[in-house]
Amino acid sequence: MNLLLLKPDQITQQIAAVDGRQLEHLLGVQRVAVGDSVRVGVIDGLMGQGIIKTLSAEQATLEISLDTPPPSATPVRLILALPRPKMLRRTLQSVTAMGVKEIYLVNSSRVEKSFWQSPFLQPEALEEHMILGLEQARDTLMPKLYMRKRFKPFVEDELGGIIQGSRALVAHPVTEVPCPINCDSAVTLAIGPEGGFIPYEVELLSSVGFEAVHLGPRILRVEVAVPALISRLFPA
Amino acid sequence: MNLLLLKPDQITQQIAAVDGRQLEHLLGVQRVAVGDSVRVGVIDGLMGQGIIKTLSAEQATLEISLDTPPPSATPVRLILALPRPKMLRRTLQSVTAMGVKEIYLVNSSRVEKSFWQSPFLQPEALEEHMILGLEQARDTLMPKLYMRKRFKPFVEDELGGIIQGSRALVAHPVTEVPCPINCDSAVTLAIGPEGGFIPYEVELLSSVGFEAVHLGPRILRVEVAVPALISRLFPA
Repeated sequence: MNLLLLKPDQITQQIAAVDGRQLEHLLGVQRVAVGDSVRVGVIDGLMGQGIIKTLSAEQATLEISLDTPPPSATPVRLILALPRPKMLRRTLQSVTAMGVKEIYLVNSSRVEKSFWQSPFLQPEALEEHMILGLEQARDTLMPKLYMRKRFKPFVEDELGGIIQGSRALVAHPVTEVPCPINCDSAVTLAIGPEGGFIPYEVELLSSVGFEAVHLGPRILRVEVAVPALISRLFPA
Repeated sequence: MNLLLLKPDQITQQIAAVDGRQLEHLLGVQRVAVGDSVRVGVIDGLMGQGIIKTLSAEQATLEISLDTPPPSATPVRLILALPRPKMLRRTLQSVTAMGVKEIYLVNSSRVEKSFWQSPFLQPEALEEHMILGLEQARDTLMPKLYMRKRFKPFVEDELGGIIQGSRALVAHPVTEVPCPINCDSAVTLAIGPEGGFIPYEVELLSSVGFEAVHLGPRILRVEVAVPALISRLFPA
C-alpha cells in the first residue's frame, strides 16, 4: 500500500476515518503513530498527505490535505477473455497498477463456463482488487469495468464503435506481425484465454478492425503477457 | 504446459517415460490417447514431437523425435532481491518463460530474513518452477540460478566482474532517468525488494557501474515490474 486510497464517504471536513484492511496495514506494516504523515488519495480525486490525529485498534482518523493530481492514464483499453479467478485477481490488480482505465471482461470459446460463476465477479470483490492496484501504483482514478458474456453480439454490435479513435490489436501467437513498440495513439488490446482465441474469434475481431499481433516466440501466461504488452506499447 | 519438458534420464533410445505431474497433465488437461502427438523438448536440448505409445494411470511412454532448437535467450541477467516465497515462485516462472537464463537471488536491507529460510529455496523446488516456466514458453534451456546472501561482498567482489560486456541497470523509482527501450546490448538488471533498495545499496551498485533508471510514475509489484522491464528492454 504505497497510497492510502479513501472513498469519499470516509471523509468529513478534511478528516478521514480508516478501519478494516487499511487500518491493519497502517498499524501492522507501516506502524504509524499519532502525528505521522502518510500518503493519501481520494478515489477519482486528488492525492496528498494525511496526518494521523487519533489511532486505536478500531479506527484511525487523519487530517488530510490534497493537492496532487494522479498520474496520467495509460491509453490502453483492455478486452480480456475472462481468466480463471486467481489469475483474474492478479491481472486486475496489475493492469490497474499500470494505469489502464477501461476493461471489458468477455467470454470466448476457451473460457470455462464455471469462471462466470465465481463469487469474485461480484462488483465489491472486483472493486477491492482495483483499489489494491491503485494503492500499489499511487493512483486514484478507478478503472471502468464491463462484463460481456456473449462474445459475438459484443464484437458485432458494440466493439466496432468502442474502438473508434484507437488502434485495435489482438494478441495472437500464430500471426507474423510483431506487436508494435512505443505507440503514439491510444490502443484497444484484446487478449484471449489460456490456449488463445479460436480462429473464428480472431476473424470476427479482424472483421471489425483488429490487427493480429504476436509477442515473440514464447507463449506467456495472461498475467505476464498483459504487463509485457502494455509496457511495450507504452513504455511510460 | 505448452511443451512436455523431459529430463535426459527419462529417455532411453528415443522412448520417454512420463509420470507424476506431467502424466496428470497429459491425462487430465490434454486428454491424450495412444497415437496422439504432443510437443516435447529435452532440458538443455532440442524440441520436437512425441507420439504416445503406451498410456496407463501410472505411466505414459512416448516415441520422440527432436529437430528444433529452443528460442533465443533474452539477453538479460537478473539480480533480484529475494522476494517473499509466493512472489518468488511466480517471478521465477515468469522470467524463465520470458527467456532469462541467469538469475542471482541476493539479500538486501529490506529483504525479510525469514525469506531465506523458505523451503521453496531448496534446489528441487526452484528447478520445478523454472521447468514450469520453460514448459509454458516452449523453451528447453534451463536458467542458471545463484544465491548470494551477503549483498556488500557480492557487489564489491563479484558483481563488477559479472556485468562486464553488459549494460548494468538498477530499477530505482526516485531517479530522473527512464529505463531505456529496445536495447542493442545485453543488460544486467537489478531489482530491489518491496520498498526498493536503500540509498546505500543503490550507491554501492552505482560504484561498480550500474545506472539507476525508473519505470514511470507508477510503483509496480516486483512480479509485474520485472516482465514490464524485460519487455521494454527487449521487445522480442
